Amino acid sequence: MVCVGVDIGGTTVKIGFFTETGENLHKWEIVTRKEERGRYILPDVADSILETLKQKGIEKDEIMGIGIGVPGPVVHEESVFECVNLGWGKTNVAETIRELTGITNVKVGNDANVAALGEMWKGGGEGYNNLVLVTLGTGVGGGIICDGRILTGSVGAGGEIGHITVNFDETVACNCGKKGCLEQYASATGIVNETKKALAASNVETTLREVENLSAKAIFDAAKSGDDFASQMVENLSEILGKTLAHVAHVVDPEAFVIGGGVSKAGEMLTERISRYYNANVMLALKNRDFRLAKLGNDAGIYGSARLILE
Amino acid sequence: MVCVGVDIGGTTVKIGFFTETGENLHKWEIVTRKEERGRYILPDVADSILETLKQKGIEKDEIMGIGIGVPGPVVHEESVFECVNLGWGKTNVAETIRELTGITNVKVGNDANVAALGEMWKGGGEGYNNLVLVTLGTGVGGGIICDGRILTGSVGAGGEIGHITVNFDETVACNCGKKGCLEQYASATGIVNETKKALAASNVETTLREVENLSAKAIFDAAKSGDDFASQMVENLSEILGKTLAHVAHVVDPEAFVIGGGVSKAGEMLTERISRYYNANVMLALKNRDFRLAKLGNDAGIYGSARLILE
Repeated sequence: MVCVGVDIGGTTVKIGFFTETGENLHKWEIVTRKEERGRYILPDVADSILETLKQKGIEKDEIMGIGIGVPGPVVHEESVFECVNLGWGKTNVAETIRELTGITNVKVGNDANVAALGEMWKGGGEGYNNLVLVTLGTGVGGGIICDGRILTGSVGAGGEIGHITVNFDETVACNCGKKGCLEQYASATGIVNETKKALAASNVETTLREVENLSAKAIFDAAKSGDDFASQMVENLSEILGKTLAHVAHVVDPEAFVIGGGVSKAGEMLTERISRYYNANVMLALKNRDFRLAKLGNDAGIYGSARLILE
Repeated sequence: MVCVGVDIGGTTVKIGFFTETGENLHKWEIVTRKEERGRYILPDVADSILETLKQKGIEKDEIMGIGIGVPGPVVHEESVFECVNLGWGKTNVAETIRELTGITNVKVGNDANVAALGEMWKGGGEGYNNLVLVTLGTGVGGGIICDGRILTGSVGAGGEIGHITVNFDETVACNCGKKGCLEQYASATGIVNETKKALAASNVETTLREVENLSAKAIFDAAKSGDDFASQMVENLSEILGKTLAHVAHVVDPEAFVIGGGVSKAGEMLTERISRYYNANVMLALKNRDFRLAKLGNDAGIYGSARLILE
């Protein structure tokens, strides 16, 4: 049997065919056509799946189902109230794909949650049944798996850990409108902003002053090369993140944290520091949890949505 | 069919018979015999259940099952590694009760989690499927229900929100060994300690100076009578709790928070203030969740453990 995983992003839709044991048989991308409030996206996905099945000589009755990750909160593994990035209002994604493909087992999940499921299945979280995926990219995304299943929450806002308030004195607003969110300090954007502020506020010597377009990568590279100022910036990010993940642990008690997204390319340097601050701020029963790096990169979404079908 | 709910506490064991729809048919208590590492507790429970069934003329095959709440972390709804308050080391509670009673459907849960299930079934959380119970007593306990089921976590530490660090500068240790836990400020003990500190640190006029054995109740009563200092103490507790529940909401996205324990007798005065600080610190999708008072008091445990059987 073949599981189909679809990850709908703002620029491209990734699609993959998988075996039930998580072997990727084939994967490809199509463009996300956002015009006319995104009305072509789901028909494009259905057409592309049906066409590729035909090309590969796979019959419809060999399909276990289609899982779909979307960038917005999902209710009942079926529909979304809104997907701002795609132009969608209220949309029953699962029903639409059922009608367009004739395949009945269709499930929908939020992209960050589905990525967590993917990392659990075949990535950095393999072997765990309870984990928290933290995606450090432009923002900070979160996906929580409890007993092997996505923790969705009552309106699909489960795992929105990027918006936990970590600084009650912040005066600048986050994209969400609130002030002092984790995302404002621990994302790629966040560490760059914090570093720029610190550079402007002091005369400290650092190789970062010579960098033209300051990026998270540049900061981590400088830290690895022994730049003390850059290292302190990484330390600050790790402290904020480690303390916040300690909060999260007292709520869901995961076996492991999996760190993904662009910032996670910093590697063990980052997980080692985060885990140090984490351990200093959890009760005994929660100490020494595993901190792993995500492995699937941009493919986490297609793995996870394919896995959704097997629940 | 009859569901049996058992709540094993450090002083008494509460036991109740319930219908499948949650009507309490009969309830009683026995003493918790903690001598010899608590070896008599489970035999006493089994004897008391069997004897009461006989008295009431209920046949064993009319029993749906026995649910048991214990004061410690529970794994696989079966056993505990340790229950310090009862003197137990590693104990398979479910298996022991099965052997002693001949009733096969036996499930075990942590007392705080089981209380949350009870409040969901027949208490302040009735009608909700996703809720967080916060018990403000000597300590701060937590129980989380997601999609109608207890969130246990990987080692049974799910919902341990009383030990979320809320003050990273605290120098005094919590009972758990960590410093700055929610429990140090938002429990009955916590508000008394904080009030004593504030009284010692200032010359502010307050009726509380005349109170001999300062209690949480005295502080809330003074606040209700218009004592500004006492009211500020309640405000501080509400701020810490509201902000921490905001953290929790970004993790599990509950429909409602149910506030229980002795401190909750302060009533709407408390929930109104907590909810104000909560709303100021959550992202839009999480705003305006319901804050309810627990209703079952000390019976929450027997209701919840009986309900465990129906999962």
